Amino acid sequence: MQIVECRGKLFMIDCGEGAQIQLRRSSIAFERLGHIFISHLHGDHCFGLIGLISTFGLLGRKAPLHIHAAKELKPMLEAQLTMFFNYDIGYQVQFYPVDTTKKAIVYEDHSLTIESIPLEHRMPCCGYLISEKPTLPHIRRDMIDMYGIPISQINNIKAGHGYTLPDGTEIPHERLVTPPHPTRSYAYCSDTRFMPNLHESIKNVSTLYHESTYADDRLDSAEKYYHSTARQAATVALNANAGKLLLGHYSARYSDETILLNEARKIFKNSFLTSEMDVFDV
Amino acid sequence: MQIVECRGKLFMIDCGEGAQIQLRRSSIAFERLGHIFISHLHGDHCFGLIGLISTFGLLGRKAPLHIHAAKELKPMLEAQLTMFFNYDIGYQVQFYPVDTTKKAIVYEDHSLTIESIPLEHRMPCCGYLISEKPTLPHIRRDMIDMYGIPISQINNIKAGHGYTLPDGTEIPHERLVTPPHPTRSYAYCSDTRFMPNLHESIKNVSTLYHESTYADDRLDSAEKYYHSTARQAATVALNANAGKLLLGHYSARYSDETILLNEARKIFKNSFLTSEMDVFDV
Repeated sequence: MQIVECRGKLFMIDCGEGAQIQLRRSSIAFERLGHIFISHLHGDHCFGLIGLISTFGLLGRKAPLHIHAAKELKPMLEAQLTMFFNYDIGYQVQFYPVDTTKKAIVYEDHSLTIESIPLEHRMPCCGYLISEKPTLPHIRRDMIDMYGIPISQINNIKAGHGYTLPDGTEIPHERLVTPPHPTRSYAYCSDTRFMPNLHESIKNVSTLYHESTYADDRLDSAEKYYHSTARQAATVALNANAGKLLLGHYSARYSDETILLNEARKIFKNSFLTSEMDVFDV
Repeated sequence: MQIVECRGKLFMIDCGEGAQIQLRRSSIAFERLGHIFISHLHGDHCFGLIGLISTFGLLGRKAPLHIHAAKELKPMLEAQLTMFFNYDIGYQVQFYPVDTTKKAIVYEDHSLTIESIPLEHRMPCCGYLISEKPTLPHIRRDMIDMYGIPISQINNIKAGHGYTLPDGTEIPHERLVTPPHPTRSYAYCSDTRFMPNLHESIKNVSTLYHESTYADDRLDSAEKYYHSTARQAATVALNANAGKLLLGHYSARYSDETILLNEARKIFKNSFLTSEMDVFDV
């Protein structure tokens, strides 16, 4: 389970058993969580949904909860809701099927988009790419004052226009603004075997989370079980020109995951290990 | 979730979300767990089943797992098994419907019985009473030697017979044995409102676990939500002539559960609080 905060909204990606317990231990304000995205229907990625839904109900949630996942999850979730709660949880659970075989927008609002990224695992599976939309440029207050530009023109200028002074002089847009904050993006890629072309779907991503179940000594296991090695994860990060790589989903065989980190850093320097309850800036 | 060890076997009662995680943190040998008993189908008592079943599969379990619960759970569990594993978890899950409205034996082997105990909650619900069967008395080696009794007679004597010496003298059974260990029993009663006659079902139980969601200041909530207060739990223990009372299932409103313990001890001195990962002798 990961919680991504973006432009003031919270999104959950995957929801393994105990997700609600971790959520309660954190200081995260549940009610800001509106959408959950599930990568695939293995237990460690979705068994926590029903408990989370249940707990939200007990805590008095009223806002609808939106769940995005492969269509097979829907009847199961509905059966559980009917059986355990007789649908009476006090708020609405809405389901949106995700086609895991396509890169497509699965969520969009005025400030960001979330896209599915097809992955290759033992069952239908996709990652998610969360991308901020560009914001408007910042008005240069000093220029506005200098040219005596009226407030009514500010929105025009932000939208890309220049300004014409009463004497006919044209002030170009670029002189009146500073550029907006650069947009950030986050890609979640778990679980998957190494995909040589994955980087094309996540070009220039600010932060990439890519599973690294094994080190390269277990390349055979990685291929067999459709997982990746740390070297492979780093290769994706390098090819994608990512800003940062977060590793995770380690096999229990590694009591010390430093071996995975070192392997990744040989290929992609800006790599980091993740573990439960970690917080990262994108 | 509780694990009861009795005569070398492990039984699980209830299986809330995260049960398998707790089980893995403990040193309990999973493979000795063969039977799970579910009291009722609220999430905190059964949402952990599918994760537990899944994990047992990953760990290579071969022995069947037996699940005892209200019949409504069966189709749900089967749907989950089909959907998530295509039934391929490597071992068999067998389901036994429990009639929560009757006191009846739901499990029996040569050394113990487990009975359902009807409880009163917001949905069909029962507790479980685990009772050791009496063992045979212990042979007094000194008497056997003194009277020169042959080995072939030992089983007869254990079974209740005396022994006749070659000269016709009858040695009574009681002189040849010491009594068997007293049998022990454990009753699990959660969740339930106060039942004035519950003690009749669990007379002389060695250890009673009885929920105590509230203290008596919240008697109204206890009645409304079909839960019990600590005083009520202690009343059941007193009336049942229980050896020991374990309290649990506290409302989150009590940051310090000592209030519940003190309330119980006023009625029934041998009361104890329980919390996660506690171990108690019965």
